[in-house]
Amino acid sequence: MPAGPLTSVGIGDDAAVVGTPSGSVVAAVDLLLEGRHFLRDWSSAYDVGVKAAARSLADIAAMGAVPTALLVALAAPGSLPARWATDLADGLAYEATRAGAGVVGGDTARADSVVLSVTALGDLAGRSPVLRSGARPGDVLAVAGPLGHSAAGFALLSAGQGQGGSAPSGLVNAAVAGPLAGLVHAHLRPAPPYAAGPEAALLGATAMIDVSDGLVADLGHVAAASGVRLAIDSSALVTGGPLSEAAAILGETTSLGGTDRADSAPSLALSWVLTGGEDHSLVAAFPASAVLPSRWRVIGKVGSGTGVTVDGAPYAGDGGWQHFR
Amino acid sequence: MPAGPLTSVGIGDDAAVVGTPSGSVVAAVDLLLEGRHFLRDWSSAYDVGVKAAARSLADIAAMGAVPTALLVALAAPGSLPARWATDLADGLAYEATRAGAGVVGGDTARADSVVLSVTALGDLAGRSPVLRSGARPGDVLAVAGPLGHSAAGFALLSAGQGQGGSAPSGLVNAAVAGPLAGLVHAHLRPAPPYAAGPEAALLGATAMIDVSDGLVADLGHVAAASGVRLAIDSSALVTGGPLSEAAAILGETTSLGGTDRADSAPSLALSWVLTGGEDHSLVAAFPASAVLPSRWRVIGKVGSGTGVTVDGAPYAGDGGWQHFR
Repeated sequence: MPAGPLTSVGIGDDAAVVGTPSGSVVAAVDLLLEGRHFLRDWSSAYDVGVKAAARSLADIAAMGAVPTALLVALAAPGSLPARWATDLADGLAYEATRAGAGVVGGDTARADSVVLSVTALGDLAGRSPVLRSGARPGDVLAVAGPLGHSAAGFALLSAGQGQGGSAPSGLVNAAVAGPLAGLVHAHLRPAPPYAAGPEAALLGATAMIDVSDGLVADLGHVAAASGVRLAIDSSALVTGGPLSEAAAILGETTSLGGTDRADSAPSLALSWVLTGGEDHSLVAAFPASAVLPSRWRVIGKVGSGTGVTVDGAPYAGDGGWQHFR
Repeated sequence: MPAGPLTSVGIGDDAAVVGTPSGSVVAAVDLLLEGRHFLRDWSSAYDVGVKAAARSLADIAAMGAVPTALLVALAAPGSLPARWATDLADGLAYEATRAGAGVVGGDTARADSVVLSVTALGDLAGRSPVLRSGARPGDVLAVAGPLGHSAAGFALLSAGQGQGGSAPSGLVNAAVAGPLAGLVHAHLRPAPPYAAGPEAALLGATAMIDVSDGLVADLGHVAAASGVRLAIDSSALVTGGPLSEAAAILGETTSLGGTDRADSAPSLALSWVLTGGEDHSLVAAFPASAVLPSRWRVIGKVGSGTGVTVDGAPYAGDGGWQHFR
């Protein structure tokens, strides 16, 4: 692929940076497909809009940029209710507004299932983009935002699905009404910490990515691009609270916790944190001297070598997040 | 939809303009769907890449901007040959390069049919964008690039399809080998005159659009946005040459010329020019005093009132281009 004379970052990072004669723009595109990234039985149109917007906007934040705009292309069946499309637009607008961006363009077409393509644009305000390739031995790894919450919410929805037909029911309804509601919400409407992206850039972050495929999988991209080993300390990960509650419930009743294995509850919660995707939290490498605000939790360090380790060993679980198919 | 504080042009024009603190970027997104915008029996993967890129890049040119970058999202069946995807990428890269742009980002996913979303970015080099809304009574209308060629090529392919199965055959093969090859080529690989977009801006164009849905239909958007009447002089349109040859052949043998009517050959050629989409030529309004280079052909004028007329009367044909479905 030609990069073009004005391109400073092309294919291979979270977003592209294209110069204009007097500035630059950060741009990223992501697809959201019915049946793969969402089910209309589980997600309202508003949910889908939020999720589609978050997915692309998080890529902008992961470059250290401030989101400025979304362009949305929607293909949908002719039978789709008009209300569904307007609710979708409302969800997109909500999340764009939350990120500080506008919805500035779009296209529509007919298709057999719902296909959304969201392009996000952002601005670096003169800073250099934070790539995947800059992590150096001696840096610390830190994360902003939750890990494993979307995966746990997905597992709760799946368990309800297995029990009671197409709509969330039984166990899930109890979860939605109780303290686990936040996990289901996190799956349906991820809430990336957008402002943490530019903040990380200002703090001197050397590499950054958003967790869309799972912590281990996405850090694997950073390790490969930077030519370093990334060592996660599992004791620094948050597996208690609602995650351990959900794991206890699901571990007792089912092995459907997203892993097809009858994990013990602690290992189930940890597997969500290490491999769960779609939280779109930000993970970054910082110089060891950086003074990090409290929303950045140190979870490990950067060393010499290759790959990603958990507590000193390569992670033995399945590395990446599986979509519906 | 919120426009965002940095948006100077949002939904409703060919592309969006989003300021950066020190400049601006022009961005547009378009979908290209298998079965609707292309058939894999007719179009090679390379053709599809060219067409998808041209569709979005033309929107950038129609703002008076120079294309700088493409972001491509592809959803495709797992059964799609790897070669098809690489040929597609080659076609995208070819057309992007022809426009002076790079391919700077993308996303892929699994779907039941091929879905392409192409986002194009462009730069105005400090100029104001040429919107749909600026045409004024007294301006002249001019077009750069062919009109009706893609529609004629589609009609030739359709006629061959009707005669001989899924692959172009018979009449179409003769056409492809003969002087009508350019029309089929124009349908499969449209070649918008990108440089004419910024040129028009420099010449003082007051309004501009690319012809994606048909001349009458797209000028209808300009007329509505500008609050003017656009008067086309059919004698200034090019209906001779390959168009009249194709119309003569198809008019003799079939009524499949894209209209479902057994038109006479001259009216068939004219209907292609007035209603044929997907040439992605540029049509613009200029002050009457503008001295236009030869590639801009004057085809009418701007007056007071509403709507689009052809030789003084509202156009009686079907106004817009019909896709496959």
